[in-house]
Amino acid sequence: MLSKRNLQLDDRGELHHLLAIEGLPKRIIERILDTAESFVGVNEREVKVVPLLRGKSIFNLFFENSTRTRTTFEIAAKRLSADVVSLDVARSSTSKGETILDTVANLTAMHADMFVVRHSESGAPWLIAQHAAPHVHVINAGDGRHEHPTQGLLDVFTIRRHKPDFTRLTVAIVGDILHSRVARSQIHALTTLGVPEIRLVGPRTLVPPELARLGARIYTSLDEALVGVDVITMLRLQNERMNGALIPSASEYFACYGLTPKRLALAKPDAIVLHPGPMNRGVEIDSAVADGRQSVILQQVTYGIAIRMAVMAMLAGAAR
Amino acid sequence: MLSKRNLQLDDRGELHHLLAIEGLPKRIIERILDTAESFVGVNEREVKVVPLLRGKSIFNLFFENSTRTRTTFEIAAKRLSADVVSLDVARSSTSKGETILDTVANLTAMHADMFVVRHSESGAPWLIAQHAAPHVHVINAGDGRHEHPTQGLLDVFTIRRHKPDFTRLTVAIVGDILHSRVARSQIHALTTLGVPEIRLVGPRTLVPPELARLGARIYTSLDEALVGVDVITMLRLQNERMNGALIPSASEYFACYGLTPKRLALAKPDAIVLHPGPMNRGVEIDSAVADGRQSVILQQVTYGIAIRMAVMAMLAGAAR
Amino acid sequence: MLSKRNLQLDDRGELHHLLAIEGLPKRIIERILDTAESFVGVNEREVKVVPLLRGKSIFNLFFENSTRTRTTFEIAAKRLSADVVSLDVARSSTSKGETILDTVANLTAMHADMFVVRHSESGAPWLIAQHAAPHVHVINAGDGRHEHPTQGLLDVFTIRRHKPDFTRLTVAIVGDILHSRVARSQIHALTTLGVPEIRLVGPRTLVPPELARLGARIYTSLDEALVGVDVITMLRLQNERMNGALIPSASEYFACYGLTPKRLALAKPDAIVLHPGPMNRGVEIDSAVADGRQSVILQQVTYGIAIRMAVMAMLAGAAR
Repeated sequence: MLSKRNLQLDDRGELHHLLAIEGLPKRIIERILDTAESFVGVNEREVKVVPLLRGKSIFNLFFENSTRTRTTFEIAAKRLSADVVSLDVARSSTSKGETILDTVANLTAMHADMFVVRHSESGAPWLIAQHAAPHVHVINAGDGRHEHPTQGLLDVFTIRRHKPDFTRLTVAIVGDILHSRVARSQIHALTTLGVPEIRLVGPRTLVPPELARLGARIYTSLDEALVGVDVITMLRLQNERMNGALIPSASEYFACYGLTPKRLALAKPDAIVLHPGPMNRGVEIDSAVADGRQSVILQQVTYGIAIRMAVMAMLAGAAR
Repeated sequence: MLSKRNLQLDDRGELHHLLAIEGLPKRIIERILDTAESFVGVNEREVKVVPLLRGKSIFNLFFENSTRTRTTFEIAAKRLSADVVSLDVARSSTSKGETILDTVANLTAMHADMFVVRHSESGAPWLIAQHAAPHVHVINAGDGRHEHPTQGLLDVFTIRRHKPDFTRLTVAIVGDILHSRVARSQIHALTTLGVPEIRLVGPRTLVPPELARLGARIYTSLDEALVGVDVITMLRLQNERMNGALIPSASEYFACYGLTPKRLALAKPDAIVLHPGPMNRGVEIDSAVADGRQSVILQQVTYGIAIRMAVMAMLAGAAR
Repeated sequence: MLSKRNLQLDDRGELHHLLAIEGLPKRIIERILDTAESFVGVNEREVKVVPLLRGKSIFNLFFENSTRTRTTFEIAAKRLSADVVSLDVARSSTSKGETILDTVANLTAMHADMFVVRHSESGAPWLIAQHAAPHVHVINAGDGRHEHPTQGLLDVFTIRRHKPDFTRLTVAIVGDILHSRVARSQIHALTTLGVPEIRLVGPRTLVPPELARLGARIYTSLDEALVGVDVITMLRLQNERMNGALIPSASEYFACYGLTPKRLALAKPDAIVLHPGPMNRGVEIDSAVADGRQSVILQQVTYGIAIRMAVMAMLAGAAR
């Protein structure tokens, strides 16, 4: 998708917006991961702050509420010494009938440097990037069912720290693939980095056969799908899916697709388990697995800060 | 109004509170505009921050919600290196029965340096200023139908950048003058700066004849009012006015008072168009005008930050 | 209560969490008060900021809403140069079914240094402290009816500034002792500091006889209780108590337990009056007393910032 790649990269091929993993060149993904490595250390220091983005104004525009994701971007920005303003967009001018583009034009006029955008509509960050002033950078923090690129990046960063050679991995992603921007971003990242086998697992209502076009193999049996895998990503089952329309019940879902220690034993002995959070313990994952030695779920959270710092620093030209 | 002027100025005639444009001496208005000029540059720099208010505590007290205005004050304060705390006053102690004055006394006891106050009741910032400790400064960020002084200042700042000689200008203000604190502050600023002709335009329900006492000429025909003007300020039509009580409908309003390119051609060729935002496109203003070459609407937003930085710095004695 | 003391102190006997006054050694309370003395000066300076906690990440976790208390911790943290993130926990992941401990584990994974926790359930900060990573510190900002230790500390700090010798004081606490974490923390602080006589005053429904086990004398007559006291703490009467179940009405309560100038005259001539705020004027306290020369209510607010700075600095090891 050439047009998307062009919008994300500037004339010199540097990252200008982060809107999606799809279409992002491998060298850019790898540069983000390498840059994030340097920020892991900053977060472990006594004084967790570097002056890279001092005097920059970053706006969190969360048209869809997410305290958790907003907090990670806020922390990442503050540790880079940027000024962050989080707008409660649901309560602001948009509710007075102002368009998104007018809201963004106004904030740009206040000399914004960067927008972190979450929206329930797929493509909203794209629309903003298309109309943004040349010096303004846009980060997609999750748009509809489309992508959640920083999540995909922190997923592959976490994987790389444990399994450095992507070309030898088998990865299973389990759950509601159909509605998941997390899954979509991770699949694109894994594919670009050369993972040869991706398995998508779940009931036919949540993992329809046509998802095979993403370059993945479709499984309805979790037991079959787990055999020999190196990495397992468990997706959160949204509460609204548990009302009987798409799956019979939470307990039946757990019986079929919940990751238990017994099932985990089917994977390779050193397989790692990821989950984007927040977890439904006892629905998609057993607590013994979530808190077990193969879980890297809290590492994902830790590395998520480093990834967001890396993306922000690269966009601002402070980490090239 | 001597009492008001006295409350806003200290013994040496320096600005101590900013509560209203009415009663503010011309020399103070001009000093604010001149100070704002120096901050325009700060906002265009790579590192948009100066240490003038380091270690100062500024409280946003928005008894009436306004994400947009609160954000502009928050950005202005942060770019001056102040600490800003925005209180969600609607949800706080006032809802537990505490009086405004007790809330303010408490925050003052925490060593507040400045309060930015928005309230649906006219005069609320005045009440706070009257009871504030001597070292505390109050900025009115909009009170009822009374005044919105920083808006009036950013309006005349924007005008001055395009038309430096106020004594030769004809200005039209169009829309719901009756309920508009924005109009009221702009009228007082223009009058004090020597503008010889101000035209107030709108239906009789929103621009009653008695407004002539503000020193302005009243028009019901927009076409007549626009002939030969240098500056046009379009006011936002509040949704609650569009229910038929004061105006028949939004589309009929646009037919009579919407600013279209055709109507704009009646003004001087170099006339500029202002709007305080957020805009109702297609209600009070046509998109071709809002986004056109004569629009200075986004410049108003940009200069709004500089004006607020100037006011805060002057109140804190850091820009005299 | 040895287990509690152990959880609050580290191996070297230094403060590691602040969860309750009960069980806190006298030397620790005195060290907090002495440290707070040094911060009183910081708050009175032009530049009210010290770099002690630069680069530290402090999270306000208010599971129960309290703008006032949250603001005091936010100000204290900012004046120590820490990064503060206030989470609107009611709207965040916990509402998506995530457990408190998962929320805390996630924030810890983001390299949190300190949690300030308010919760409607007694013991919630305790639970968090028990499961926190070794380098993380927890401050109880009020849990259920249990304790509100920083309030108790600022109370005794305020008292000490006026009456330095605790061993000679008679203190009356008036109002809804039964439901008050403020009263509980103050009683433990006074007792530990050697106050020989504490009088608990109120109707039998709010001050049942079994409270005598706290080492206090129980009074139902305010007039009797006030005779010869040095310190009077008036508690806020929660609105939900005024519906007739526990007390007949607000006006009848004022008649029996409201502190009027006439009643205050029964105490020692130099007695001081405390109130944790927000006040119900005319319910538990007369405005003539609240604003009178014996009131130290606003001093409590001022010293509350210094106390919270002292606690945060000591926990972070920056003020030992």
